[in-house]
Amino acid sequence: MWLRRRVLKLKKKMELLGLDAFVVAKSGFYFSGTTACKMVVIPSDGEPILICSRLEQERAAAESWIKDVRAFSAWKAPLRSGERVYFMKPHELLDSCLESIGARFVGYEGLPPSTVRALKKTGKRNCVELSKWVQELRAIKDPSEIKLLRKSAQIASRGMRAALETLRPGIREIDVAAQAEYEMRKRGSTGTPFPTIVASGKNSALPHASATEKKIRKGELVVIDLGATYRGYASDCTRTWGVGLSKKRLQLVEIVKRAQKSAVARLRDGMMVKEICAAANQVLNRAGLLRDSLHGLGHGVGIEIHELPSLYPGSKEVLKSGMVLTVEPGVYCRNIGGARWEDMFLIKKNDAEQLTMTT
Amino acid sequence: MWLRRRVLKLKKKMELLGLDAFVVAKSGFYFSGTTACKMVVIPSDGEPILICSRLEQERAAAESWIKDVRAFSAWKAPLRSGERVYFMKPHELLDSCLESIGARFVGYEGLPPSTVRALKKTGKRNCVELSKWVQELRAIKDPSEIKLLRKSAQIASRGMRAALETLRPGIREIDVAAQAEYEMRKRGSTGTPFPTIVASGKNSALPHASATEKKIRKGELVVIDLGATYRGYASDCTRTWGVGLSKKRLQLVEIVKRAQKSAVARLRDGMMVKEICAAANQVLNRAGLLRDSLHGLGHGVGIEIHELPSLYPGSKEVLKSGMVLTVEPGVYCRNIGGARWEDMFLIKKNDAEQLTMTT
Repeated sequence: MWLRRRVLKLKKKMELLGLDAFVVAKSGFYFSGTTACKMVVIPSDGEPILICSRLEQERAAAESWIKDVRAFSAWKAPLRSGERVYFMKPHELLDSCLESIGARFVGYEGLPPSTVRALKKTGKRNCVELSKWVQELRAIKDPSEIKLLRKSAQIASRGMRAALETLRPGIREIDVAAQAEYEMRKRGSTGTPFPTIVASGKNSALPHASATEKKIRKGELVVIDLGATYRGYASDCTRTWGVGLSKKRLQLVEIVKRAQKSAVARLRDGMMVKEICAAANQVLNRAGLLRDSLHGLGHGVGIEIHELPSLYPGSKEVLKSGMVLTVEPGVYCRNIGGARWEDMFLIKKNDAEQLTMTT
Repeated sequence: MWLRRRVLKLKKKMELLGLDAFVVAKSGFYFSGTTACKMVVIPSDGEPILICSRLEQERAAAESWIKDVRAFSAWKAPLRSGERVYFMKPHELLDSCLESIGARFVGYEGLPPSTVRALKKTGKRNCVELSKWVQELRAIKDPSEIKLLRKSAQIASRGMRAALETLRPGIREIDVAAQAEYEMRKRGSTGTPFPTIVASGKNSALPHASATEKKIRKGELVVIDLGATYRGYASDCTRTWGVGLSKKRLQLVEIVKRAQKSAVARLRDGMMVKEICAAANQVLNRAGLLRDSLHGLGHGVGIEIHELPSLYPGSKEVLKSGMVLTVEPGVYCRNIGGARWEDMFLIKKNDAEQLTMTT
């Protein structure tokens, strides 16, 4: 039901521009409900068509609500009874689908450049890139997505707890990551949406470190940033930890927590993104750490780990109910180390609900 | 040293076409040696330029052999002492790099369509898409890559052993996956290059299943397909297992093993890919199972899990020394279940070396 509504929302946008069809590639899972999908063709009138590889045909038919499943195979192979396959390349099958619905003005999202070239070369139609439309639709999560994101965030929280429990001087960064990922996997995560970060000591000062074979030592800051994937939906959570930390390092952690709190207090429908960023940056600036805060304040999370909205000071975007996003102030000092504190939030009418661990 | 040689090889190709510069995006890690790299600009004369986000600048400088590192930032932020940042979008920085070396005829690989449009819009230069060149270079692995692929394959083999040891009726598919991934992680894998497959019973008949919460039962076929990533290099291995299997199901496993053996016996420099496929298919055909062998025979493995060459019956490609590829015949029967057997091989002058577990 929710997936069909996503198609209807896109069709409304298509009407505005007078498009005959829309081809979705990168967001195929979003509209079809299956990762077996290569492309979805959405005609202005009529039912969508799912295009997939022959290899994925049975899975696509079983997992998607879309009834019209068309499979391609790049080479001729003997077929099984009842099997229907188009022996052509994906872009040729797409061409024939668009032909069959008489589409002359076509929007598209996430198509590989070679497919776009092939479609234009036929001279049969005008094609226009409209990824932004789909990204904007995806930024507002529907109830079925919120359910999955909530569960994904819960799994990440369990992973974080497991990671924090392993921590002691002498353990390697990758051992901490292994334990967290094992815990998440057992609870239904199908994989990490980004490489788990366990960054200790000098590594903590790099915002995009990973987990190395380095041993964690007493007195070092340790930044742990991890996420799960649950039924296609990502999560993202960061904690900074240390044993026997100097006062300077403890302060670093306190300041990013305070910056997060100040930003989170302002989260709600209708608020400007730049106001949220200003709230966090004011805390960092007062501590003289704005210069060491190398990245934006956060990002939307959904099927992809980075979706709209993007939280940065120059943004002109406004928060809307149904957005799910991270708030993750971080500071990275060359000599002292780094600290980051991150949680996922669901934007509501008057406030925001924290989806990752609240302790 | 090996990374510089990769650049020199590309420069030789550039000479043939008279290109002034080549922009690498998707294969940035291959040429620069760091994942912190967004793009590499390789001029026909002179040293390459690494383009990265401000966030990744320190890591890029530390990890890459390329000295000229230029960082962009989408928004203006206070800088730290000694830091040099271009406050512009990535494609604007690319444009200015190409301008600074006077490049008017430019090849590129893996650039997002929006960047290509922006580059062409300036009207300053001709741009031509040449991903194929880079894919062909990458298909032949150099000694430094073979070392990493060998290690990656060893880690996958340890993961497979761990998975096989957990197997017993009653265990869930994801528990098997969790154990295998934990083992690989502890041994230095930074993540799985594709979602680990543990497909039992009906799931085994789907070539691209994943690992679900389904419990494994006695008498069921179980297909386990997994890989590690070691310092950026992928691995891939499949085993099919079962306890209390019927004669029919045992035979299925025997046949894919025999098909693999027949193909592997022919692996060597100079052999046509289609001959390798014919050898495997002959075994499957004799058993009446060709119709249920839904996919190609294998694929190259390197930084990506699917690289050149692609092993399928209609291929016109020839195997060359230094290629690393999988041989993975599989059959998928709707009622009986599926079986697949896969290993990674390094092509040599007179034969091939098996990189994954030989038992």
